Amino acid sequence: MTKQELFENIQRKKSFLCVGLDTDVNKIPEHLFDESDDPIFEFNKAIIDATADLCVAYKPNLAFYESLGLEGWEVLERTVEYIRENYPDQFIIADAKRGDIGNTSAMYARTFFGNMEFDSVTVAPYMGEDSVSPFLTYEGKWVILLALTSNKGALDFQFMRDAEGELLFEKVLKTSLKWGTDENMMYVVGATKAEMLTDIRKIVPEHFLLVPGVGAQGGSLQDVAEFGLNKTCGLLVNSSRQIIYASAEKDYAQMARSEAEKVQTEMEFILKQAELI
Amino acid sequence: MTKQELFENIQRKKSFLCVGLDTDVNKIPEHLFDESDDPIFEFNKAIIDATADLCVAYKPNLAFYESLGLEGWEVLERTVEYIRENYPDQFIIADAKRGDIGNTSAMYARTFFGNMEFDSVTVAPYMGEDSVSPFLTYEGKWVILLALTSNKGALDFQFMRDAEGELLFEKVLKTSLKWGTDENMMYVVGATKAEMLTDIRKIVPEHFLLVPGVGAQGGSLQDVAEFGLNKTCGLLVNSSRQIIYASAEKDYAQMARSEAEKVQTEMEFILKQAELI
Repeated sequence: MTKQELFENIQRKKSFLCVGLDTDVNKIPEHLFDESDDPIFEFNKAIIDATADLCVAYKPNLAFYESLGLEGWEVLERTVEYIRENYPDQFIIADAKRGDIGNTSAMYARTFFGNMEFDSVTVAPYMGEDSVSPFLTYEGKWVILLALTSNKGALDFQFMRDAEGELLFEKVLKTSLKWGTDENMMYVVGATKAEMLTDIRKIVPEHFLLVPGVGAQGGSLQDVAEFGLNKTCGLLVNSSRQIIYASAEKDYAQMARSEAEKVQTEMEFILKQAELI
Repeated sequence: MTKQELFENIQRKKSFLCVGLDTDVNKIPEHLFDESDDPIFEFNKAIIDATADLCVAYKPNLAFYESLGLEGWEVLERTVEYIRENYPDQFIIADAKRGDIGNTSAMYARTFFGNMEFDSVTVAPYMGEDSVSPFLTYEGKWVILLALTSNKGALDFQFMRDAEGELLFEKVLKTSLKWGTDENMMYVVGATKAEMLTDIRKIVPEHFLLVPGVGAQGGSLQDVAEFGLNKTCGLLVNSSRQIIYASAEKDYAQMARSEAEKVQTEMEFILKQAELI
């Protein structure tokens, strides 16, 4: 998918929502296990069918599928196929946080872009350019590089400051500008301090940012938009648990839709305010 | 496995060799595909049987298995089971370079330590403490944290220097000392500049280091030992391609053994010199 296509999807759907498919066997509705031989896929399918017109991206979190062994990988593959076949306008993110030496990253790229039809994969920057560049050789595919994450541990290293005052996550942004473009790289930027987006936008004005950590906290979507929007929207805002676990009862898909609608409505308002639609 | 048990294995086998199982369908001997329905596992099994008395650890590289889809995961699971059942003194490393927010790292930990019987997993430090600590809650299991990697991209961020002169990889070592101990953490330290081990040993004198990048270059094992050995050996030196792809013919297992023997012989000499055996 090109950047322009992604922006057009955002305009048409009036949404820059990414739904995180952190599907956890311990959290999905219990009745699914009684009624289906295939409860995890059934859950994903129902969530996707209930939300596809309200979001522009899905983000399966690989850890949740890997932890189920072979069955999990099989469900992951079918979930990606299901989205591809039924909702071809969705941008599909493998939230895998991979990154290794060149020949190994090339293997991971083959997994996500060759074997499975993901559009993008999240990559950790610690090992530098040759750990990232193999993912950039696939036409139309994207790297989403970790820059500033939203967890507490982000403070351990990402804010390390060099003698010139530059922070590690800023160095990751600046250095990686030489590896790819705003047509094949995005960045993970946590929303815990939305005003930091102002400085980040000075470094990467044109890139899309994948923003986790919005939603349950409430209200911060407005802040993220204020500091993060650019002329092609430039934001994918993720919500996982708040949407997919909105209910553990038989109405779970309907309640997921209802939560996604709330976010989409706010996003539509934001996009109109910014004159992007 | 405890640190003491690992050291005893090293003393008994007179080796601190780790064999990397970077099993690539494009590199294993062609005759295996004609003679077996299960060529990848057959290859791993033959390599393991040929080298198990010469090494103390095996390190499957997850990317190579994931890239084969379900079949790859299934071979990975069987490979770990095979080592566990037949060579229970082997230390098994999931070279996965994972690392994510707490609940997600907990899922990865469950995959490698709960579902599969790995002893350890390689983890990337970028996301900080809460991305690492879930792996440390499993008794007898180990985190192997990336500190200084051996690839070219290591120069991009790992040598970032703060105002006090501390490098990022040094900060990773120092900070993570608060997360675990030398009984549940090791570090990946590349061998491209063996003399750097002197400074690293000042920060982590007691920890085991997993050292990739020794072997094909030749000669550097002596340097690594000179600067890196401690009183419980403290080194696991990995060799992958040089051993497992020593031959692409029917003698591949025998040739792998021959290569492993060369390394083990050198290691025995080093351990004797250091009076560790």
